Parts: sequence; C-alpha cells; structure tokens
Amino acid sequence: MTTLPTGRFVFDFAEGSMDEQDLLGGKGANLAEMTRLGLPVPPGFTIATTACRAYLETGDLPAGVSTEISAHLARLEEVMCRRLGDPADPLLISVRSGAKFSMPGMMETILDIGLTDESVHGLAKRSGDEHFAWDSYRRLLQMYARTVLDVPDEVLRTAVSAEYAEWGAGTPEELPAAAIERACAELQRAIAGHAGRPFPQDPREQLDLAVRAVFRSWSTPRAQLYRRQEHIPGDLGTAVNVMAMVFGNRGADSGTGVAFTRDPASGAPGSYGDYLQDAQGEDVVAGVRNTVPLAELATIDPVSHAGLMAAMSTLEQHYRDLCDIEFTVERGRLWILQTRVGKRTAEAAFRIAVQLVDEGLITLDEALLRVTGGQLGQLMFPRFRAGHGVPALARGVGASPGAAVGVAAFDSAAAKRFAAAGRQVVLVRRETNPDDLPGMLAAGGILTTRGGKTSHAAVVARGLGKACVCGVESLAVDPLARRAVTAENVVIEEGDLLSLDGTTGVVHRGEVPVVPSPIVEYFEGRLELAAADDLVRAVDRLLRHADSCRKLGVHANADTPADSARARRFGAEGIGLCRTEHMFLGARRKLVERLVLAGTATEQQSVLDDLLQLQRADFIEIFRSMGGLPVTVRLIDPPLHEFLPDLTDLSVRAAVGRATTAPDLEAEGLLAAVRRLHESNPMLGLRGVRLGIAVPGLFAMQTRAIAEATAIVAAEGTTVRPEIMVPLIAGDAELRLVRQEIEAVLAEVRSRTGCQIPTRVGAMIEVPRAALGAGRIARHADFFSFGTNDLTQLTWAFSRDDVEASIFPRYLDAGIFEVSPFESLDVEGVGRLVRLAVAEGRDANPGLVVGVCGEHGGDPASIEFFAAAGLDYVSCSPFRIPIARLTAGRVAVASSSAGSDTR
Amino acid sequence: MTTLPTGRFVFDFAEGSMDEQDLLGGKGANLAEMTRLGLPVPPGFTIATTACRAYLETGDLPAGVSTEISAHLARLEEVMCRRLGDPADPLLISVRSGAKFSMPGMMETILDIGLTDESVHGLAKRSGDEHFAWDSYRRLLQMYARTVLDVPDEVLRTAVSAEYAEWGAGTPEELPAAAIERACAELQRAIAGHAGRPFPQDPREQLDLAVRAVFRSWSTPRAQLYRRQEHIPGDLGTAVNVMAMVFGNRGADSGTGVAFTRDPASGAPGSYGDYLQDAQGEDVVAGVRNTVPLAELATIDPVSHAGLMAAMSTLEQHYRDLCDIEFTVERGRLWILQTRVGKRTAEAAFRIAVQLVDEGLITLDEALLRVTGGQLGQLMFPRFRAGHGVPALARGVGASPGAAVGVAAFDSAAAKRFAAAGRQVVLVRRETNPDDLPGMLAAGGILTTRGGKTSHAAVVARGLGKACVCGVESLAVDPLARRAVTAENVVIEEGDLLSLDGTTGVVHRGEVPVVPSPIVEYFEGRLELAAADDLVRAVDRLLRHADSCRKLGVHANADTPADSARARRFGAEGIGLCRTEHMFLGARRKLVERLVLAGTATEQQSVLDDLLQLQRADFIEIFRSMGGLPVTVRLIDPPLHEFLPDLTDLSVRAAVGRATTAPDLEAEGLLAAVRRLHESNPMLGLRGVRLGIAVPGLFAMQTRAIAEATAIVAAEGTTVRPEIMVPLIAGDAELRLVRQEIEAVLAEVRSRTGCQIPTRVGAMIEVPRAALGAGRIARHADFFSFGTNDLTQLTWAFSRDDVEASIFPRYLDAGIFEVSPFESLDVEGVGRLVRLAVAEGRDANPGLVVGVCGEHGGDPASIEFFAAAGLDYVSCSPFRIPIARLTAGRVAVASSSAGSDTR
Repeated sequence: MTTLPTGRFVFDFAEGSMDEQDLLGGKGANLAEMTRLGLPVPPGFTIATTACRAYLETGDLPAGVSTEISAHLARLEEVMCRRLGDPADPLLISVRSGAKFSMPGMMETILDIGLTDESVHGLAKRSGDEHFAWDSYRRLLQMYARTVLDVPDEVLRTAVSAEYAEWGAGTPEELPAAAIERACAELQRAIAGHAGRPFPQDPREQLDLAVRAVFRSWSTPRAQLYRRQEHIPGDLGTAVNVMAMVFGNRGADSGTGVAFTRDPASGAPGSYGDYLQDAQGEDVVAGVRNTVPLAELATIDPVSHAGLMAAMSTLEQHYRDLCDIEFTVERGRLWILQTRVGKRTAEAAFRIAVQLVDEGLITLDEALLRVTGGQLGQLMFPRFRAGHGVPALARGVGASPGAAVGVAAFDSAAAKRFAAAGRQVVLVRRETNPDDLPGMLAAGGILTTRGGKTSHAAVVARGLGKACVCGVESLAVDPLARRAVTAENVVIEEGDLLSLDGTTGVVHRGEVPVVPSPIVEYFEGRLELAAADDLVRAVDRLLRHADSCRKLGVHANADTPADSARARRFGAEGIGLCRTEHMFLGARRKLVERLVLAGTATEQQSVLDDLLQLQRADFIEIFRSMGGLPVTVRLIDPPLHEFLPDLTDLSVRAAVGRATTAPDLEAEGLLAAVRRLHESNPMLGLRGVRLGIAVPGLFAMQTRAIAEATAIVAAEGTTVRPEIMVPLIAGDAELRLVRQEIEAVLAEVRSRTGCQIPTRVGAMIEVPRAALGAGRIARHADFFSFGTNDLTQLTWAFSRDDVEASIFPRYLDAGIFEVSPFESLDVEGVGRLVRLAVAEGRDANPGLVVGVCGEHGGDPASIEFFAAAGLDYVSCSPFRIPIARLTAGRVAVASSSAGSDTR
Repeated sequence: MTTLPTGRFVFDFAEGSMDEQDLLGGKGANLAEMTRLGLPVPPGFTIATTACRAYLETGDLPAGVSTEISAHLARLEEVMCRRLGDPADPLLISVRSGAKFSMPGMMETILDIGLTDESVHGLAKRSGDEHFAWDSYRRLLQMYARTVLDVPDEVLRTAVSAEYAEWGAGTPEELPAAAIERACAELQRAIAGHAGRPFPQDPREQLDLAVRAVFRSWSTPRAQLYRRQEHIPGDLGTAVNVMAMVFGNRGADSGTGVAFTRDPASGAPGSYGDYLQDAQGEDVVAGVRNTVPLAELATIDPVSHAGLMAAMSTLEQHYRDLCDIEFTVERGRLWILQTRVGKRTAEAAFRIAVQLVDEGLITLDEALLRVTGGQLGQLMFPRFRAGHGVPALARGVGASPGAAVGVAAFDSAAAKRFAAAGRQVVLVRRETNPDDLPGMLAAGGILTTRGGKTSHAAVVARGLGKACVCGVESLAVDPLARRAVTAENVVIEEGDLLSLDGTTGVVHRGEVPVVPSPIVEYFEGRLELAAADDLVRAVDRLLRHADSCRKLGVHANADTPADSARARRFGAEGIGLCRTEHMFLGARRKLVERLVLAGTATEQQSVLDDLLQLQRADFIEIFRSMGGLPVTVRLIDPPLHEFLPDLTDLSVRAAVGRATTAPDLEAEGLLAAVRRLHESNPMLGLRGVRLGIAVPGLFAMQTRAIAEATAIVAAEGTTVRPEIMVPLIAGDAELRLVRQEIEAVLAEVRSRTGCQIPTRVGAMIEVPRAALGAGRIARHADFFSFGTNDLTQLTWAFSRDDVEASIFPRYLDAGIFEVSPFESLDVEGVGRLVRLAVAEGRDANPGLVVGVCGEHGGDPASIEFFAAAGLDYVSCSPFRIPIARLTAGRVAVASSSAGSDTR
C-alpha cells in the first residue's frame, strides 16, 4: 500500500517513509523516515524491491531503472557538490542491501564506489591523506572483487600477502601508503586474472554492477537457508540503498559505533552501545580492535555524543520502541547511517513493553502486540542462574530450549548406563540418527557438532521437550576415544559434567546452577507478586490485559487430578481434553488386556464392571478439582495394541521357550490372540469409536462412570459440567449410533440418581472425512473438538513416530516445509479442513461449540490461525496455558486494530 | 416431478401413470399405467408415499387423508355396485404395499378386507360357496392378526391346530366349511387374548388400521436391512394400493399365475410363466401345490390365455422391455393384478437388450442403459457348465462371484494342508473371523452357514476375489467332527468334493464341470465372434457402441509385458498404472534390501547400477508391447519394510540362536538395521516420494531406466509415450524438487541419445493434502492420477489390511456404510476431495490430464462418479476393462439424454 508514485523504481531518501518497507526494504524506509525527521543522514536514494524482483525473474533490470538512477545520482552529485569518481574530487558512495525483514550478514554491502586509478589521487589530494585514500581504494577493490566479481578470498589474501610480509603488518592500516598502493596494483592483477575482466574504471559501471550483485545476493543458498529458518518469504527481494560515503576513519576526531536506546538484553532503560575511534563500520564487525562503551564518547567528543543522545531520544519517541542505530563521526560531525526497531531478548521484550506503557508512549493494547507467546514460552523454562560466572566452553545453535546439566555420554549405551545409575546425562554426538533415540530419551540435554535447527537432533529434541544445542562446530567429538576436544584443546572426557543452554546455544564445562523460571514459580503460587521482580510483574500485567481482551477460551489437556489442579493455577477455564486411556496404564493395563482377549461375554462384563469402579473414582477426583468448570472427557481412543503385549517380544519368548525345551506357557497362550489382533498400521486400525462399536459395553461403561461420578460430586454440592467426546468419528452414522448408547445410559443414571447430569456430547474431528462431512456430523453433535495431531498425520500421511526422525530433517532442509506441521498447524492443508469443518458445522448447527485439543492448541502461530478460523477455544497442556492466553489476547487486539501486524 | 395435483394424498388408478413412481410407488404407478392402457385391472386407488413419510415422521396420517380415502372408497363402491363389508353383499378389498423400488416379501399385504362376522354370511350366500367364504375370512383373520395386530404365528397355528387334527387336514382348504368357521372363532379368541383387543368388526376400521400397518412395515428391521443391502434410500416410504378383490380360488375355472414376456433366466424370446388352478397368489408363493407351465392355460382356458398374451404383448410394446405380470382368472375372467419391468439374469439382460434393438423397440443407446457393468462382470467369471445335471445340495447367499470346486476343509490348518498337497479347496465354516484368513487364502471358495453379504467371509472373499457362498443355513457344520450335515441328512466329510457358485449361492456335492467365460475367451482371442453364441455377440455389439459413445478413456493397471498385452486385447487405450515395485520382487528384492542397508554411497551406487540394467530391460518389454499407447510408470511407492526381512522373524531367529548357543549371524547382522528402519505405521512412513528424497539417486535411476528404454525402443521404430508418475505427493514443493531431478536426467539422456523422449511428469493424488493443495501442485504437473485406495485409507483412517476384517462387517451391518468404501468410492468424503482437486487443478493448469488408477477405476458405480467429476480416464485391472468401457459408454449416453436413469 504505497503512497509513493507507481511506475518508478528509484526514490530519494526524502521521498519515502517508515511505512514503505515493502517497497524500500527496512533500511531504506527507516533512512527515509530519519531524513524526514531532520536527523543527520547522509543523502542518497533507494532502488526498490520491485526492481530486484524483476531482475531475479528476468535476469535484467526493468526498463527505465538505469535512467532513474542517473537522475537521482545527478541530484546527489548536486547536493554534495561533487561528481561520482571525479578524478579531481570524487564523490564516493556506498551500495547496501536492505530487505523488508532484517537478514544480518546474509547480503552484500560495497563501500567507496567511485574510486578509480585516477580518482584515488584526487581523494588523496582533497583529503590531504594519502594513506586514507589508498586504504579506501584497497577496501573497495577487496569488497568489489569478492562481492561483484566472485573472486575467492584466498586469491585476494595471496595478492596482498607479499606486502604484509615485507612490512610485518598484521592489518592493512599498519602499512605505509606506498605499500597499500602496491597492494592495490596486486589486487587489480589478481582480479583481472581470476574474474577474466579488469576492475571497472568507469565509476558508473562500478555502481551498476554493484546493484546487480546486491540483487543477486538475495538468492544465495545461505540467504535462502536463513529465510527458511526465519520464516521469511522467499519472493520479497531486497532493495538497494545508495548513499554518499562518510568516513569514520579520518583520525582521532572520527569514529563509528552502534547504539541502543535501551539495553536489548535485560530491557533496562538508558542508552547502551559501543564506539570505535578512527574506524569504519566493517572494522567493528571484524572485531580486530576493541570498542569502548558508548558513554566514553561523551568524553571523546561531547558534541557528537549530545547529538547522538538527542537523535536517539527523537527516534524512540517517534518509533515508540527500542531502536538501534549505526552511526559515524567524521571529523567531529555526527552521521546516522541506519536505524531500526531493535531486536531484544524475551525478558527485555516484556520489560520494555511495560516501561513504554508507563512512560505513556504506547497503550496496553500496543504493549501486548510487542511481546509474543514464543517469548513467554522461553521465559517459562528453567534457566542458568544469572551471573553464574562459568565461562562458555563453546557455542552452537540453540535448537530446543531449556537448561540441562549432566555428565557427557558419547553414545546411547553410555547415556542409558549413566541414567540407570541415577545421573543426569548430556548426550554428545556429531549428529544423531534414529539409532540414538534411546540415548536421547535417557538424556536431559543433547549436544551435536553438526546440523542446525532442522537436524534430526533438533527435531527429535523439540518433540521430546529436551534441551538441545546443535552445530557446536568448535568441538571435535571422537566417539571411539569417548572424548571431545575444543578448538582451544580443552578435553571433555566421558563422565565430565557439561551444562548447556538450549535457548542461547551456549555450552559450559562443569555444573552451572539452574534456577526455576520465576514466571512458573509465580503461577505455581510459590512466589508472591509483591516479592517478584519487574519481569514477573510485566508478564502478569500483560497476561491480565490479554485475558480482558481475548475472545478465544483457553482450556487445558489434563488427565489427572494433579494436572487439572495445575491447569487451574495456570488460568485454564476448563479441561478441553481429558484422555481416559491414561487411566488404563500401569496395573490397569492388564484389565484392558483381559477385556480384549476375553473369550466370553460374561468375562468381558466382569472386566467392564471392574473398570467402571476405577474410572468412576478417577472422574470423581477430576470433577472435584475442576468444580464448576467444564471437563471434556474423551472416550477411549488409542490403538488396541497399546494395551497388549508386544508381538515380537511374545514371539521371541515363545520361540526361545520351544528351542530350549522350557516352554513359556504364558507367551504361548497369548501369542495366537495377539497375532490375531495385530495390526500392520494401528494408527488406521481398530481404535476410537470403532473400538466402542466393536467391544459392546465399553463406551456404555465409560459413560456410566462419568454420569455416576457427576451425580456423586454434584451431591457434594459441586457443580459438574462433564462433556463426552467421541474420538475417531469419520461420519455422522457412527456418532448417531454411539450417541444413542450414551443417551440411554445417561437417562438411566439420571432417573436412578435424580441428578440432572448436564452433559454435552460431541465429536473429535481428527479424521479428514469428518472434516469433509462436518455438516452432517454437526446435526448430531453439541460440540466439535479438532484433534489436529491425528488430523495432521492423516492429511499428510505422516506417522509422527516414524517420519519425524527419518523425513523431517530432509524436508526442513529442502524447504518443503518451514516448520514441522506437528509444531505449527499446516494452514494450507490441515487448516483448510479446519476452516471448512467450522463453517459447515456451524451452518448445520448454529449452537455448535468448536475447539481444538491437539498440541497445536498451545502453539502461538497455530492459535492465531484458530482464532482467525473462529474457534471458541483452544486446549493445551497446562504449561502452555499462559502462552495461549497471551496469544489469544494479542490476536483479539490485532484484529480489532485493523491492519496491525501480529508477527 | 409429478403432474398429479399437489396437496392430495390419494389417487384413483385412472389418474396416475408409470412416471409417478416417486409418488405412487412402483406397483401403483404400473397399475395406473395399465388402467390407462385399458388392460383388465380391478378398480382401486393408491395412497401416496407422501402420506407414508408423514406418518413415519409424526406417527399419524396427515390431515385430510382419511376424507380422501372415504371419497375414493365411495367411488370404488359405486363402480363395483357393492359397499365395503355390506352384510348382504360385501365389497372386499386388498391392501398392498408398493415402494418405488421393489422390495419383494419385505412389506405387508392384507387381502379380503371387508369380511366380518356378518358379511362372511353375505359372501357365502352371494357366492353360493360357504367353504370359499369362510376360508376367505380365515385368510383375513390370519393375515390381519399377524400384520396389523402383531400376533405371533405360533399363537395362530395353535388356534387352528385342533380343527386340523380332528380332520387330519394338511392345509386349511381340506377342512369342511363348518370346521373353518370354528377355526375362525378360535382365531378371533386368540387375537383378542393376545392383541388386547378384538378383531375389528367395522370394515372401515379394518382398512384404516391396515393402511397404517403397511406404512409401519417400511421400517421393520428386515426391511431396513434389505434396503441397505440393495442400496435403496431409507427415507422414500411406501405407497399403499387399495384394490377390489378378485378371486382365483373360486373353482376350476379360476386360478392365478405369474408370467414373463421373455425368459428372465436366458433372455430367450417368448412368454414364460406358471399357473395354479383354483388358488390365490399367496398359494403360489407358499408353494404347497404344484404349478403348471403357463402354456397349459391355453388348454385350460383358451380365452383367458389369449387375453393374457394380448395384454403381455401390449405391455412389452408399451414398456419396451421385459415385463412380468401377476394375474388372476376368476370364473373365466382375466384380471391383471400387477406388472413391472422384470428382473433378469446378466445374460438375459444382454440378450434382451439386443433383441429389442433388432425388433425396433429401442435404440442402441437405450440398450446400453439396459445392461450394467456389474452384469458384464458376472459374465466374465468361469461358470458351471450349463446343464451339468448335478443337483443342488443346498442354497445360500451368493456373496462373492465365481465358480469354485474343491475338497471340503473345516479349518485353516486342513485348508493349508490340502492346498500344499496341490488340491483345490473349499473352506467350510459356520462363520469366519480373522483367524481364518490363512484358510481363506489357501481356498478357492468359501462356504459359511451364517451371515450374509456383509459378513466377514463375504467382505474378505470379495477383497481376495474368491468365490463365496454365505448363510447356507440348511447345512449344520461340526468342525470338531470335521463334517457337515444337510437338512436331508446328507453328510459331507472333510476331503469330500464340493462345488459352489458364488453368483447364485448354489452349493453342489461332487465336482461340477467349470467352463471359462465365453466373453473372456472371445477377448483373449480364443473364440471367434462368428463361432460364438448370441450372448457374446450381444456383449460385443454393446461394448462397441459404448466405445463409440464414451468420453472417458479406459486404461489398464499392468506391471508386466504379459499384463500389458492382455490389457490391449481387452481394449485398454494405454497403461494408466505401471507399478515398478512389482519389478523388485523375487530375486531382485535382495537388491533393494542391499540398497536400503548399504553402508556407503559407493555401495548404494553399485546397487543402483544393477537395478538400472534390470528396470531398463523391463521397460523395454513393456514399451514394445504397448507401442504407440501411453504408459504411465509410477516411481517406487511401497513402504520400505516390504523389501526388508520381517522384524519379528529376525528377532526370533536371533534370540533362538543366542539361546541355543548356535548364533544366527545373518539374523544378528540384519537385526539392528531392520529395527532402525522399522516403522510403527508403514502406510504413513518412509515411502513414495519420501523414499525418492531419502535415497539419493533412486528416482534418477528409475527415470534413467525409463528414458533409456524409450530411446532404445524408439530406435526400433516403435512410438513410445512414457509418463512418469510421482507417488505420495503431499504438496507442490515435493513435486517441484523431484521434477527437477527427473528433468535433469531426461535432458542428459535426450542429448546423449538424440531421442526426443516425449514424457509427461505428473503427481499421484493419494494423500488428502495433495487434493487440498491441487491448485498449487497442478502448476508443476502435466497430469494427476488419483490413487483412490490410499486416498480412501487416509480420508477414513482405515488401514485396509486391518479394518476390512475387524470393522467392516460391523459397519455394514450397522448401516454406517452401504458398501465398503474400497469397493465403491465414498462419494461424500473421498469423492469430495476428488471433485475439489479436479476443479482446482484444472483451474491452475487448464491442460492438466486427470485420471484415476485405484481399484475403483474398475467399479461401475465409481466410474459413474469419475465421469461426472470430469476425469479424462480411468485405469483398472485388465479384466475390468470391458466393464469400464461399458460403464463409460452408459454414462455418456445417460448424460446426453437428460433425465435418464442410469441405475
């Protein structure tokens, strides 16, 4: 939605504004905004993303771009009173990429364009600084060769090595001007030899080729990989910013720095940053010289410092958020080269949002949009104690959050051995594959030296909820020697203690003390708000505001009285999924086995009678703990085989017994029945409503347990609102059939106990056909609850147990999806079924209540989708409830303030 | 679309017509038509199905029906010059059900309404026949008691048994009139005692209650079951026909019979039927007395016979089809009580359709609509030789067609033993369950004594393509004694020969000679058309006409040169599915095992090289045999585990080896890898395109084999049109990725061989998400082919291997579906995905070719759906090709003649 003239591709900084990020990229839009604010931005212009997209599509710049560049260049020369590459007094310019979303380090920048064999002399004369002029030319030649002409670094290093050696110099700046001049000549020879063409001596050709190179850098493999990981669309393209050069490397009265309007790590108020005297920006990045804290600039150059503070204040008031800035001081004059709303940690996000409210800059609604459910999730993991002082051993990619401390184990066998001995374990591998699963299960944390957020280790660790750091490349692992060695030759032997932070990717040697999340401590009632720090209070304040805004209900998946009590503490408004099969584990498993293998109806009935007692007792406890809130009980769902002995184990036992003439009579006795009931794809077999139809009396027993528990707890004076959910419904006929059976039992218990038993009966929508036939099903259902785990498995034909390890890392790497569809709902495929079922279900039954009880119910991106799809509530694990509450509030605020971006 | 006045429920026979079957039911509409044709139909009226539907919904007749009945009854009395139940000279009427689709024996009929304790004397006096009058009253009392008042048969039998015993009578007719009168009194006492009310003496009350009883009979469990089995919608309701009684039991000059205008068994021209003197229709049905062939009526009553022949000729000319008729002669006067287009066998259907064309009564288009793909399918099974003379031993339900001859085996173990000894087997069980699967696999035919077309045995046998007769209730099976005994005490011992006809349900003792289907012999080129009988010529003629009409292409699923040659002979226009995994069976299986378990890339490549040679040779043969026709090759699809040793077997071998200190080194060696690759739900695991992405070079090897084979066969001068189909696509990204790899190989082979290799690349649509994202996928696909087997499995969450036996019989019985969704496409669920994918795929890519290659491609009902959904072709097994051709022709004709019924 640009207000800039269409049909043009190039815009002066003074033309744009911060709202033009689609067209001008983030950097260009912010340069335009600062120019309009009157801040000291060097003059220049932006070539829009539309030109990039056209270039990438056709291989050529659109017609007219060249002419537009000429016109803007002419204006720039006029303002600067110099011509680009003028031999006598050259105007120099920088060419920088700038996409809509920041991709730091991913794309190209070229400085000092305009220097040629001739104009370098003009620059030397005008600046009175031979060394500066030749060093600038060297910088241009190196950057240009690498970026525009694809000359390998190695070739460039070799070209200058003779001069370095002769002068014993460590950095180019240490060379005398004449030596740099000779190095420039060597560089030009190397370029011509390698690129098959000389370095262009026409300044305009330098510019044109540089623009194209920046556009091309959008499509490098590393840029593509970065975008996939950061969920940035691949078709946006980058803008190019052309700006008059200013120089921080003109002596002690010059310099360059970065500054933040608040501390981006902690969120503490007050400016924060680094300054490097007599240097250009790239020198700060290279880290060859040490920066000083920003505050020292006040001593070095009080005028520039005051100007910077004023500019930062202007920016924060204007952007109404934490800003970061790149600036340069050239001979005592301050230039601001870039600004943007600054990145920040999760805790800084919450603190800053609430500070800005208190400062009157933003509203609580806006504050809510400044924090994300993902950030709140990070704050809910245990973490290393602040200021623990244990130095970092190595760094990798934080691939699955959480803090883990344990002894290093170099394979699954060792991990299991340590775990069996009661020790915490960190599994250390080069990379993992499905063979490592037992070790991953035994470990509290996983460390790999290869791969990133999409590697097998990362995907599996996130699925298991274990902390994981991937791609710790500085660590060399030798599994045979059972040791790992860092680049600094620090040796980690098996059994040594390691501590790893799955959020930051930092690995420590030894034990770093872990502290629980204060947020969780607060929810659990172990920390009073009054005693808590400002972070907890900020979270609490924003959550309360989210609750007051949101339209989406938040329920919990909870199967035990302990779970449901925690769910209440975390703010659940009910139980959206109470799985009854968990009630059949442990000793009760044998009962289900007997039920399934029962030879006679009498035997079956006797098992059902036993189960009735147990289930009723379970429900009584849950109903008591959730008094007054709805509890949605799902009738038994999982495949039969989960209740039966494993076929392979039984076969082995029976065969070994026979082979050793010590027959295993129990195994023999069970084998035939287990073989008969064995399914080749249990996920698609006898389960859910099918089991209810196949085992007469099973659903009736469960309904009776619910109804009788309701009557008992209601008689105690507690309101009970049970809801009965039938799983694996594929069509209306199944629900009609089962509902008849359920209603008959309810009627019987009602008339016997005199209790009203206010129950709703609904369908779990987890089979694609149920979504496709939602209209018919809704006529027999009081509610729908989407089981998005199974719906995803079936819509994609993905067995989560099987493909997450074997296929997902490959699919993520190939960009087939950007995030596992089990982590965030696949909106295109599964989401389409959800939308369709909601629309057609409500059409057929306007009173239909619709929720979701899959794990997606606690994923922020998925919650945004569910809210937009019009669901009434989400249900998720107790720990995710605050995340869901916050996200639901954000969605409500974003949708009421049209056009707001909830990313 | 009735032309009758709306707002009325009752219509005189003279008002309606044969087009009013929705409103008047089949019988009522045909009575109306015959009345209009001037045929001798007793006067009467029809109470419409709309009244039935209202009655079933509200429990009461709609307002006005009673008044309408009164008016029509008054008119009837006027025409007949008698009043209903007039004590002096009663008008008697019949009340008969009549739904739109015939449901023989399922609903109720009540005759002789109008007889009371008084009017029976009037009837006796007027007819001059005491015996006739009292016997009519007895018939009314018995029918009424059973039908309207729910008195059990047993009670009625007991009531008359004393009179029978006293007179030593076998049938009521043998009693003297006075005895029947006493029996009537006994019946009335029994009725009053059991029904809690006396038999109504008010004739109008008799009528009103009878009408309600007929309406209620629509909803009896057996009527519901019948409708489910016959796929008749459950909400149509029945009409009631009220007709003046005529009597075939008035002496030797009276009688009753049924007649067909042609032989419904063979289709031979000329009338055909049975006649029973001095009897009513129910006596024919009861079968207590023997009928005589219809031709004898010419001798008994030449006038009536001539009248009947004339009426039949009128009807056949008018209906332009085989008609059957029920008629009665009352004292030399012919009455026609019912007609309808007659049911016929499959062979009769083909013969009659072509005869009617030759007689100028119908067009070839119409003839095509008179036969079905299902009927053609029946004619393609081997059958027992006509006139084999082996008497029937017993009869059951023909549950899976085909003729089977073999030795009786009473359990799986015996069946496997006989089969291992090289004998044909018929498995005989009371009923089957999954434990019987090995025996069913070993047998050529299956016989059960319980259950019907939806039983486990029936469902599994149809899935396996084995002949099956179910529900042979007259056979008592004793599996322990290994014998079965018929009602006539014929004993079948294990090992005795049995022959069973799965189409007709007839079981013979001994060996009945089986002959191949002449239709198949003709297609296979083993029978010349000139030497064939008129049935083969009729089929050929209608198939050729179908080919000339149809728009839907018919391709074959064929994996071997032999299959593809047969496919051509049966009329395939190409191969729609050539599965490459079948090429990996047998000795080659080991290669795939090596490929998957290979430790190094070199090892993998060497296996791929070996596979390339083998696959190329396979494709060369297939391309030669299909020269000029397209061949769609599906890249390897099935789950990995199909190529690996079974995990349980390996585990047992390894464990036994260890336990007996004779280690099985091969098993030990494979176990870890097989365990690592083991999947809990292989259907949803690493297969199809995923395998192609996970095993680098696999799809490239297959593409190379196809491309090189194409170049080789093209160089021989044969046109080759290979198409490459990628299985298990879930989204466009997978297809894009794989297509790049395929195109690269094609380009390389093209440039190396100089052969053009005209290849299309497409996606198999078998994952729900692919259908939901068809628009995006179509942009990268030249064609779609629906894999409806997997699409059904995933849309329903049904693993066919698991649920067909465990769940389907229950689901069919409960009416959750009327036919297995693997037999006929589930139009509501899976069909919705198909329609959506066709529409959105064509939208995105107008040149997209769309076909189906699942087994549904050979199922007539599914083909009708696919044609309506706009598919370009269906692909099916070679034997089903004629069925598909015929059905596609029928659909084309039906859709061009608007409003025609293709059922």
